[in-house]
Amino acid sequence: MIVYERRVRFDDVDAAGLVFYARMLGYCHEAMEVFFGSLEGGYVALINTRRVGFPTVHIEADFRAPVRYGDALRIVVETAHIGTRSASLRFTMTRVADGVMAAVVKNVYAVSNLDALKAISIPDDVRTALAAHLPA
Amino acid sequence: MIVYERRVRFDDVDAAGLVFYARMLGYCHEAMEVFFGSLEGGYVALINTRRVGFPTVHIEADFRAPVRYGDALRIVVETAHIGTRSASLRFTMTRVADGVMAAVVKNVYAVSNLDALKAISIPDDVRTALAAHLPA
Amino acid sequence: MIVYERRVRFDDVDAAGLVFYARMLGYCHEAMEVFFGSLEGGYVALINTRRVGFPTVHIEADFRAPVRYGDALRIVVETAHIGTRSASLRFTMTRVADGVMAAVVKNVYAVSNLDALKAISIPDDVRTALAAHLPA
Amino acid sequence: MIVYERRVRFDDVDAAGLVFYARMLGYCHEAMEVFFGSLEGGYVALINTRRVGFPTVHIEADFRAPVRYGDALRIVVETAHIGTRSASLRFTMTRVADGVMAAVVKNVYAVSNLDALKAISIPDDVRTALAAHLPA
Repeated sequence: MIVYERRVRFDDVDAAGLVFYARMLGYCHEAMEVFFGSLEGGYVALINTRRVGFPTVHIEADFRAPVRYGDALRIVVETAHIGTRSASLRFTMTRVADGVMAAVVKNVYAVSNLDALKAISIPDDVRTALAAHLPA
Repeated sequence: MIVYERRVRFDDVDAAGLVFYARMLGYCHEAMEVFFGSLEGGYVALINTRRVGFPTVHIEADFRAPVRYGDALRIVVETAHIGTRSASLRFTMTRVADGVMAAVVKNVYAVSNLDALKAISIPDDVRTALAAHLPA
Repeated sequence: MIVYERRVRFDDVDAAGLVFYARMLGYCHEAMEVFFGSLEGGYVALINTRRVGFPTVHIEADFRAPVRYGDALRIVVETAHIGTRSASLRFTMTRVADGVMAAVVKNVYAVSNLDALKAISIPDDVRTALAAHLPA
Repeated sequence: MIVYERRVRFDDVDAAGLVFYARMLGYCHEAMEVFFGSLEGGYVALINTRRVGFPTVHIEADFRAPVRYGDALRIVVETAHIGTRSASLRFTMTRVADGVMAAVVKNVYAVSNLDALKAISIPDDVRTALAAHLPA
């Protein structure tokens, strides 16, 4: 598993004073970029050079406790599933200060060539990175 | 059902050149604000004056086709479920130009008092608005 | 001049309860897209097809009154200057409800080819659109 | 001076493939939060507890070189001016990889009570933090 800590930013909240729910999914993407940091060139090279992308095709998310400005989140990323041309990650988000579970998000990605925008077989190094983070 | 049309904005895309997936959920919130437009003072009064909020507690989303800068989306909002202290909406998003289904998002909301941040019974006018948009 | 009205959205505010200042500049960009709506294919065709972009090279902005969730802004766009390879627009933003001046933003753009990322002479139709909105 | 380094994120770019200009001002705000990190409770306590805010009243910004996904920025923050009830910061942003100057932003803030939304005298600890970062 990979751990990514993230403070809520000043402009992450909405008019209800809570972190806007879509912003939480942005945090997941940040954590995913960290997740692929072990690859040569990281997520940036995947996108910019290799043109391998991970469009989200499915999300299941549970939000269990509010998150506010001043909170920090600890996001644990694990591989939930490795398919042939798709994979899924699970993001478990707890508030750093009190350990309360704030959200669990499962994202399914279609591994894709970004020029053709077609699903492709998961490249070997990506598959290795995913396999390294399957739950025990 | 309520229909909300929305052009993709210049800054809605990501480095892969597609609308960032979390932004799609932001579109859903915009459509939800329109959905509650029939209430006196609309969604703004719910939040600012009545302090009735709709924190998302669960999302299920399928993304089926890419959306890019230059596309517009037609978002149909229907009530999926009305509970005692929660409700859910279904957002069906098609690309305006070609009618291709881009995404289906189901959001479950806990109807809440924003000061106490506790679930409350759905106010009558909100319940009426929800009931008006149950599928036939 | 071009007029663009825009409601503050639920997620445009920050933890101080005001529209986040950078978001106001996003509003200006939206208004600029409307400004170029008279061109064939609009701003989208400029970016996607013609690869003519308008990177901002200079901003001067004054923020004079707070803007909150529930407010709508009336944004008037006028051409401030037309150069050879640059142009500037002035955005005057008033609150719709009370007419209070909220902000004045002047943006200077380098008209650029987006592939080479080099300044280019302003295309004729763009120059015509700019000239049509010089103040009387 | 305070130094804050920030990678461009996947969703910081726009349809032209460059960091959206308003996002650069968001980076400045992040750097400003770091700037006030020496205060007890940091910027969060200023906003949430002490209700002391810094609405931007004026911006002058020059953007000199493009910033893309894959770039990181080094943001140097210095105090530009300390007034009675206002202060200004200068943000100098260079690309980490090649040291190229990307932007210089000067922000003038009205130090304000967020409940009354009125300008107030700069609190002593804030003044001390500002004074510590005046250029030599």
